[in-house]
Amino acid sequence: MRRPMNFNAGPASLPLAALQRARDELLDFAGTGISVMEHSHRGKEYERVHDEALALLRELLDVPADYDVLILQGGASMQFALVPMNFLPPGGSADYVVTGAWSEKAHSEGLAWAGATGARVRVAASGKALGYTRVLSPGDVRLDEDAAYVHFTSNETIHGVQYAELPRFGSAPHVCDMSSDILSRRFDVSQLALIYAGAQKNIGPSGVTVVIARRDFVERGRKDLPAIVQYRAHAQARSLLNTPPTFGIYLLRNVLAWAKGEGGLDALERRNRNKAAVLYAVIDANPQFFRCPVEVTSRSIMNVVFRLPTEDLEKTFVDEAKKSGMLGLKGHRSVGGIRASLYNAVEPDWVSTLAAFMSDFVRRTG
Amino acid sequence: MRRPMNFNAGPASLPLAALQRARDELLDFAGTGISVMEHSHRGKEYERVHDEALALLRELLDVPADYDVLILQGGASMQFALVPMNFLPPGGSADYVVTGAWSEKAHSEGLAWAGATGARVRVAASGKALGYTRVLSPGDVRLDEDAAYVHFTSNETIHGVQYAELPRFGSAPHVCDMSSDILSRRFDVSQLALIYAGAQKNIGPSGVTVVIARRDFVERGRKDLPAIVQYRAHAQARSLLNTPPTFGIYLLRNVLAWAKGEGGLDALERRNRNKAAVLYAVIDANPQFFRCPVEVTSRSIMNVVFRLPTEDLEKTFVDEAKKSGMLGLKGHRSVGGIRASLYNAVEPDWVSTLAAFMSDFVRRTG
Repeated sequence: MRRPMNFNAGPASLPLAALQRARDELLDFAGTGISVMEHSHRGKEYERVHDEALALLRELLDVPADYDVLILQGGASMQFALVPMNFLPPGGSADYVVTGAWSEKAHSEGLAWAGATGARVRVAASGKALGYTRVLSPGDVRLDEDAAYVHFTSNETIHGVQYAELPRFGSAPHVCDMSSDILSRRFDVSQLALIYAGAQKNIGPSGVTVVIARRDFVERGRKDLPAIVQYRAHAQARSLLNTPPTFGIYLLRNVLAWAKGEGGLDALERRNRNKAAVLYAVIDANPQFFRCPVEVTSRSIMNVVFRLPTEDLEKTFVDEAKKSGMLGLKGHRSVGGIRASLYNAVEPDWVSTLAAFMSDFVRRTG
Repeated sequence: MRRPMNFNAGPASLPLAALQRARDELLDFAGTGISVMEHSHRGKEYERVHDEALALLRELLDVPADYDVLILQGGASMQFALVPMNFLPPGGSADYVVTGAWSEKAHSEGLAWAGATGARVRVAASGKALGYTRVLSPGDVRLDEDAAYVHFTSNETIHGVQYAELPRFGSAPHVCDMSSDILSRRFDVSQLALIYAGAQKNIGPSGVTVVIARRDFVERGRKDLPAIVQYRAHAQARSLLNTPPTFGIYLLRNVLAWAKGEGGLDALERRNRNKAAVLYAVIDANPQFFRCPVEVTSRSIMNVVFRLPTEDLEKTFVDEAKKSGMLGLKGHRSVGGIRASLYNAVEPDWVSTLAAFMSDFVRRTG
């Protein structure tokens, strides 16, 4: 059976090499005769994997020495709560830049925490009235000078809106949800105080969350909450404060090793930009048929969203694509339409096939 | 290579059948041509696995209809925080029964939350002065009549102390950490308001946490905190509030399907009691050499801990056992000695081999 072309939004396609490696040693890890899942997280066999995963993240993302790299559980959704729990003290305030469904959620969870603890969470700017069709620039936002942090989302998976360059919103520490574009392109970690990302789009399976944070920012976090919710405690324990999701981290390691073998971040970025350009070219070449709701300068290179003339045609498109081996093209249920997610593991071949299918679909039905 | 006999304390041995099933379909799940890890958590292929895991937990543990079964992330350590966050309101109080290292930790995390929110957490009784050599009975504890809940640990993995029967500490709702003995023996779920368990001992890989809670107790939880820390929100969303650790839950499903095939809880319990009896018999037959610090009625059937006459002999014991293919017998670093963890996936054969090795070791060095 030919491997289907998987355009899922996350959990998403994983590099075949990373999966094959996992399969080949699933029952016998590193010649130990047992699965990596059966090893103690305190044993040297697992610790080597753990350390390699952390080191590869540091190397591939060029993380400065004064930043901690953590691997946690609970997805970006748990970070929506942990960020204010750590950094929004009672009486304090935080700013949120809302550019789509995910930053909306981050804001809503921050708001709950603020309400429960006598703090304040502000929407510094919202793209909702614009239908989330573009990112928000520094000129769009009203900042609180005293904000403990400003939170934004580098790429909105559902709305297909992405910052072409990391924005700078005043002088408060910047916290960024990079779940859907981490390791997809080069960026300057030192512009951000804290980055978090669920792994299940670009770097691994679900159940693993990566956090990269400046050490002095981490130190500023609340010290009176349970240790398990304090970034500080995880940093001190090298992400071994409690039993980590060992198999998930092992898979993350496999994916990162593959990424390095592919040439690292710059090679992946070139590949990703080319993939996105191929799809946007077909969309733009058929303006009477395809419509991308996102402004050109805010178009995501990770999640290409577009509409067809009718919902019936969209349904036919998704069904026919599936029959041709292309999975996961249905837009998020909250917005409809079509979405092609082009994360690192999505092969350029698949994207060419999808582009050809799109052109053909126009010819046949347009 | 013969499969090593894995006595790890957790992450621990997994049933070979569950691992083989995972290996065989790692690249092609249910004929879909992609890994279960690459499926959307909203797609029907994964949802079938998710629902089957929940249904098997309900069936195997005979969970009453008015209880929710949840699958979360973060391990028991995250539950140490979530329990007080949900159920300990400002001004309220909670009781902790401390019988070893893990209930100590649960208490310490509860204490932090209480301190940060103006609530109170009490040690209703502690076995520390006794060196954690037995469980604490209702006669040992001083209860707070108004406690929001009373927390205890059914089996202490590090100290090898286990409740032979679930205790009853007054009328407050009982919350129990069952990480190291869930699915190892029959118990009456309806005696408890909430049970939690990290999966990585008896029921799956690390990174997956099971919570079973009475619905009216869940409803009593705080409603003003971020949704991701509210049990209520996870229950309403059938544990699909955010992206779950799909592969971990798939593995959990494989382990539960194996457990059912083995004859379910009663069969596993018989097997587990026999395994423990074999080891304790060797210990008791050689009182001049082996010493189990735990009082007989509190001896764990999951974690058999014992000492040898000297630490040097203990080191030799662990090293020689390893050479004979028996892994993970070193006691926890905080207490030393020997520990054999006998979770569900540990084969009776392995235990017989260990027992023979122990007898032989006495003959040779005793």
